[in-house]
Amino acid sequence: MKVGFIGFGEVASTLSAGLLENGVEISVCIEGRSSKTQKRASEIDLNLCLTNRELAENSDILISTVTPKTAVKVAQDIGEHVNGVYVDINNISPKTTKKALSFIKNGKIADASIIGTVRKGLNVPIIVSGPCANKFAELNKYGMNINVIGDEEGQASAVKMLRSSFTKGLSALLFETLYPAYEMGIDKEVIKYISETECEGFNDSAISRIISSAFHAKRRHEEMAEVIKVLSEIENPRMSKAAQDFYKKLYEDLGDLERRPGSYAEIFELIKKKN
Amino acid sequence: MKVGFIGFGEVASTLSAGLLENGVEISVCIEGRSSKTQKRASEIDLNLCLTNRELAENSDILISTVTPKTAVKVAQDIGEHVNGVYVDINNISPKTTKKALSFIKNGKIADASIIGTVRKGLNVPIIVSGPCANKFAELNKYGMNINVIGDEEGQASAVKMLRSSFTKGLSALLFETLYPAYEMGIDKEVIKYISETECEGFNDSAISRIISSAFHAKRRHEEMAEVIKVLSEIENPRMSKAAQDFYKKLYEDLGDLERRPGSYAEIFELIKKKN
Repeated sequence: MKVGFIGFGEVASTLSAGLLENGVEISVCIEGRSSKTQKRASEIDLNLCLTNRELAENSDILISTVTPKTAVKVAQDIGEHVNGVYVDINNISPKTTKKALSFIKNGKIADASIIGTVRKGLNVPIIVSGPCANKFAELNKYGMNINVIGDEEGQASAVKMLRSSFTKGLSALLFETLYPAYEMGIDKEVIKYISETECEGFNDSAISRIISSAFHAKRRHEEMAEVIKVLSEIENPRMSKAAQDFYKKLYEDLGDLERRPGSYAEIFELIKKKN
Repeated sequence: MKVGFIGFGEVASTLSAGLLENGVEISVCIEGRSSKTQKRASEIDLNLCLTNRELAENSDILISTVTPKTAVKVAQDIGEHVNGVYVDINNISPKTTKKALSFIKNGKIADASIIGTVRKGLNVPIIVSGPCANKFAELNKYGMNINVIGDEEGQASAVKMLRSSFTKGLSALLFETLYPAYEMGIDKEVIKYISETECEGFNDSAISRIISSAFHAKRRHEEMAEVIKVLSEIENPRMSKAAQDFYKKLYEDLGDLERRPGSYAEIFELIKKKN
């Protein structure tokens, strides 16, 4: 099995390291890559191709792991040269995924999404949909954790997007519940009594979600814009719009934080000072 | 221990039945009550007082279980005659609770809130705050499940209100996540992959929350108005406002449902037809 990666950031380097260990032949293209990336690639035993075209022609499975902004462009550039299955695993909307995959002339395509963080390693849950989803899932033989969820491209991206908008909305809701609770001196009690009907680990996850919201407010505000565009074709996404406004105001209040705050109290005190 | 109940709806009849079994002397006032209530009271072994004043003068602990609209009025009417501890357990905002309790001249007051449904029986979790919270919690000796969370009246009501606005917001968020998922044919996958980072029972609770949202849309819309009033004194409650709008639109779309729908698909199909 020959797997090629377009791009060589955290996703490609993590997955390729795991696949290599399990006997998969891995190729990457180093043309135009930074010296840091070239160094990372040469440290492990990878085939280095000179062009993406060469990579596309010689991979059984070609996985696009680039930046959201270049996902369509790279598919367009090599769409005519793909011989095997082309898998888009980038964090882009269902519509953008479909657009990128439409350039792959042989029609052997799959839409994959990582659920959670790739830092978990080769075993991170990945969902996939599209005509060649099953072919991509054959990499499970080599230690991957891929679940086929449908045969249309766009479905996996949509599941990821909806999941991600839900969790961002939930964090905004938690924040707006616990800030007034903190002001009233009953934050611990509110968390405790919400926990009674939510999960076991609710307490820790609530605290961590509030801190992450503050630390990533700007990025989340931007990501919500993309989500709202997609949801608006089906409904008026009131909660997502409110979450977007919430993150916008949070970023205005806090600015870029130099480090991840240690507690929600630290964040709430900053907001109090500001308002 | 002599416990009196003002009002005799589901809360009073459930708690009094349990306390009676555990040896507590229970009094209620039957003046002006419906014949149905009088019958319910006479079926179990209760002391029947002719007036609320008589009830107030003779109870060690007097618990107000009336409608939200009459909670202040009833406290005002008997405030000068309360000898023991007056406990407001009505589902009202922290501000309204404080107002009601301000009429109790002896100052022996407590603010109690039921967490969840009283249908669980005597053992249902109850939180309490205020100067005489500990006195009320002595009923734990008789099988109640009371937790003192603070010494100021209003705190228990605030915990309940914040918990309830969180869960209503969460249901709205779930609805707005799963409706587009259903439209795209990926609802089961979205629930499944949200479950991975939420709790064990997420799947069942998500389904039940969506159905309840549709069935109680009107009441929830009204309840959110009260919550927003309280939260607005501290923050701009964007998520709660969005949830209020969501329930308003949901009620406009669905109207009064005759029965609790059996599945979310049933609800989503009604909405599709409507829009």
